[in-house]
Amino acid sequence: MSVSPSLNPHVSVDCVIFGFSKETLRLLLIKRTVPNAITELDDSYYALPGDLVRDNENLDEAAARVLKELTGLTGIFLQQFQAFGDPLRISKAKDRAWLQGVRQDPDARVITVAYMALIDSNQVQIQPGSFSKEAVWLPIAEIPELGFDHNDISEGALLALREKVQIQPIAFELLPEKFTMSDLQTLYETILERDLDKRNFRRKMLNSGVITALPEKQHGVSNKPARYYVFNRNLVENGGLGFVNLKMEGSFTLFS
Amino acid sequence: MSVSPSLNPHVSVDCVIFGFSKETLRLLLIKRTVPNAITELDDSYYALPGDLVRDNENLDEAAARVLKELTGLTGIFLQQFQAFGDPLRISKAKDRAWLQGVRQDPDARVITVAYMALIDSNQVQIQPGSFSKEAVWLPIAEIPELGFDHNDISEGALLALREKVQIQPIAFELLPEKFTMSDLQTLYETILERDLDKRNFRRKMLNSGVITALPEKQHGVSNKPARYYVFNRNLVENGGLGFVNLKMEGSFTLFS
Repeated sequence: MSVSPSLNPHVSVDCVIFGFSKETLRLLLIKRTVPNAITELDDSYYALPGDLVRDNENLDEAAARVLKELTGLTGIFLQQFQAFGDPLRISKAKDRAWLQGVRQDPDARVITVAYMALIDSNQVQIQPGSFSKEAVWLPIAEIPELGFDHNDISEGALLALREKVQIQPIAFELLPEKFTMSDLQTLYETILERDLDKRNFRRKMLNSGVITALPEKQHGVSNKPARYYVFNRNLVENGGLGFVNLKMEGSFTLFS
Repeated sequence: MSVSPSLNPHVSVDCVIFGFSKETLRLLLIKRTVPNAITELDDSYYALPGDLVRDNENLDEAAARVLKELTGLTGIFLQQFQAFGDPLRISKAKDRAWLQGVRQDPDARVITVAYMALIDSNQVQIQPGSFSKEAVWLPIAEIPELGFDHNDISEGALLALREKVQIQPIAFELLPEKFTMSDLQTLYETILERDLDKRNFRRKMLNSGVITALPEKQHGVSNKPARYYVFNRNLVENGGLGFVNLKMEGSFTLFS
């Protein structure tokens, strides 16, 4: 059992990857298999995808590498939200058994920098590849006990997402390129965990300038076909709308 | 010259400490003296207060320790906002000369977790102590070239502060316990770098419930004495106001 030098922990990145399908917010998790499985424990469990930061890369590059290896995607929404550094964040038996199979110094402290990714889960081909033999999308209401402190990290990501969707137009990253107003409202209601008034939502979303109606409507639906919209990505990213505030109902406003 | 093991960088915390006095937003910086001063360089320069994270402490504890050693204060507003991990963030000659005097492995990579602190700078007794022989409050418009990537970190803190004061009632941490409406407006205008309408500011700040008027007014001023207000710290911290949104003028509102 090697011991790392005092004051020199490992540094990793972990990615909380959000997707949205079947009206449910989901996390992309990988399955870890404990080598030389300890009989009294299950031999596998779920964790966030992550890896140690390499010598020659910065934190954003490390997170983008993890995401690309798992999803094949580049250039998607990926934002650092918090570092986690509890000295005891790796103390569960399963975590230690898993680390003994993959690392020379399983007892070294690991401080991790957590990232949040938002992707259209319907467009992604999961490539577990070097991280795991299996990766799954699990509804956030059904996340089991994860490795390390990954439940805390996931919870932190969800709180950060709720805050961010109120001040940045980022929720669109979770939708297909074209979507209905109902799709969009369901997404916001799911993230915020509250119902929103339909007429107000529609009016304000259109007034904000962040979406544009297409001439196209749904095909082959039994009910009245709904109109499709697109996110004005170029306009928003070029600052054409200025500061966009997606404020919750019932909050106070000082500077409107 | 020792070389640290591959993949094991140092991890530090750095504190961007904001204060407000004489209608100016300021940063608390420490002066580093380069040991065995290299003649072609100045022998001192400014940097953010920070330190390596110790084996037995988490990130928040490390930041609180740095802050306490420098200011003597505990229990003040201190929030992690971003980790910085560019592999080349320590490459300036002064930084390397300084590190050679204080660390056994000056060439080791250092990844730092940055914190933002907000304090009433008029109430603080600076205790440079173990970090430096000198610490100063410098206006943010007059920050010189700092050590490491501390200019980038300071800039990141300012952007984070501007965002946070719009969604959390935290600006009050920079004011004395009692303040005038004019003090408060000046503080917001300074942080946001824009003028705000006086009547709107007053009305909305009072309607928000985050402050309460005192019966007391200014004494010994030549102009008309202004009323004092206090921040409703207990009400806000106990969630009595719900979500408080301090939105900027001219932004869009989707869910009001």
